[in-house]
Amino acid sequence: MPAPCIICVAITGSVPQKSDNPAVPITVTEQIESTHAAFEAGAAICHAHVREDDGTPTSDPDRFAALKEGIEKHCPGMIVQLSTGGRSGAGTARGGMLPLAPDMASLSVGSNNFPTRVYENPPDLVDWLAAEMLKHHVKPEIEAFDLSHIFQAKKMADDGRLADPPYVQFVMGVKNAMPADREVFDFYVATTRRLFGPDAPWCAAGVGRNQAVVNDWAIAAGGHART
Amino acid sequence: MPAPCIICVAITGSVPQKSDNPAVPITVTEQIESTHAAFEAGAAICHAHVREDDGTPTSDPDRFAALKEGIEKHCPGMIVQLSTGGRSGAGTARGGMLPLAPDMASLSVGSNNFPTRVYENPPDLVDWLAAEMLKHHVKPEIEAFDLSHIFQAKKMADDGRLADPPYVQFVMGVKNAMPADREVFDFYVATTRRLFGPDAPWCAAGVGRNQAVVNDWAIAAGGHART
Ligand SMILES: [Zn+2]
Ligand SMILES: [Zn+2]
Ligand SMILES: [Zn+2]
Ligand SMILES: [Zn+2]
Repeated sequence: MPAPCIICVAITGSVPQKSDNPAVPITVTEQIESTHAAFEAGAAICHAHVREDDGTPTSDPDRFAALKEGIEKHCPGMIVQLSTGGRSGAGTARGGMLPLAPDMASLSVGSNNFPTRVYENPPDLVDWLAAEMLKHHVKPEIEAFDLSHIFQAKKMADDGRLADPPYVQFVMGVKNAMPADREVFDFYVATTRRLFGPDAPWCAAGVGRNQAVVNDWAIAAGGHART
Repeated sequence: MPAPCIICVAITGSVPQKSDNPAVPITVTEQIESTHAAFEAGAAICHAHVREDDGTPTSDPDRFAALKEGIEKHCPGMIVQLSTGGRSGAGTARGGMLPLAPDMASLSVGSNNFPTRVYENPPDLVDWLAAEMLKHHVKPEIEAFDLSHIFQAKKMADDGRLADPPYVQFVMGVKNAMPADREVFDFYVATTRRLFGPDAPWCAAGVGRNQAVVNDWAIAAGGHART
């Protein structure tokens, strides 16, 4: 029997606002209850961003601490994954929540373009975030926005900057980065298996209207899914 | 008979100095004679960066004009390709030489990491450089430091931001970007053929000690080579 599919629920993200969709959970209380509902529906990982009260993305460790505590209370056993993404802060502020020692945190290991700007992950910041995760025993989820990021994760695992094997997520469908292309998806899977072994776990996320199709591909190919 | 292999000679680059290798041509006069020697030896494209007298990289249009004029005089028929790379300038200064209307210019269409920093090619700058190339009838060479850059070139060609089909170069072996990996190379070739047609020309460059092996791969696979 293949390993069960892990569903990771991405509550909130860093972009959508109540004005886009009133159901987007913004306050920590809303986030906890939204996560609780997803947990009841089968989600096993919560990928979390936090916001200011006005909806602005932030990396505020106090917000993250309150959210983590709420999820642990309402959703016992759920894996908490905190975002260190660059839309919520800059420089080492992106990793200010890592001393909370969440189960997991997202980690970008390369740079790429986003719809209107460069998603900047300079090598020294990547190494600092990875070192903080090692120090606090946080399992990284590698956000692969492009193919070279999978190779970079392998290099970092080989030289001890990551605990081996990393959990890689393919991110597809971001404008100006990698589109949701089926042949690339298959090559991502093959490359991950080649570099990390046939049983290495991996996940895939399709952004926006690409979500459902990438979920389909990932589940059918034996990977895990981000909603 | 397959199409002849086009050899592109990259004189100077933006990184090496006389202190690394006394043979690196720095002054325009040295660059012209170095290019002339390569032309006599069979190179058909000159990929050119310019330097200040002290070796510092620059995008100075006057330097590029003098170099272009010298190459055209000493190497009749050679294709002149000027670099718009980000190591020699910032922002629109990177394209200040495009009104010289060289035959070609390099164009990065995405961002990625370099050994110690982010190679920043923000979407609006990419679009501006591409528009300048269209305006001055300059053929871009797309520098694909990662897989998504080939897809970005396709998107830009489809919506008229590039003249179709673009000339794509795979760049492999830059630390923190894409390594020189044979399976990736094969996938790059297959992807280029899928997106731009089986006869679309492409080129490959291996950086530093990866140069010879990537040249071997490219020539054997029917592509063109950067020295
Ligand atoms: Zn996120
Ligand atoms: Zn609850
Ligand atoms: Zn160059
Ligand atoms: Zn000469």
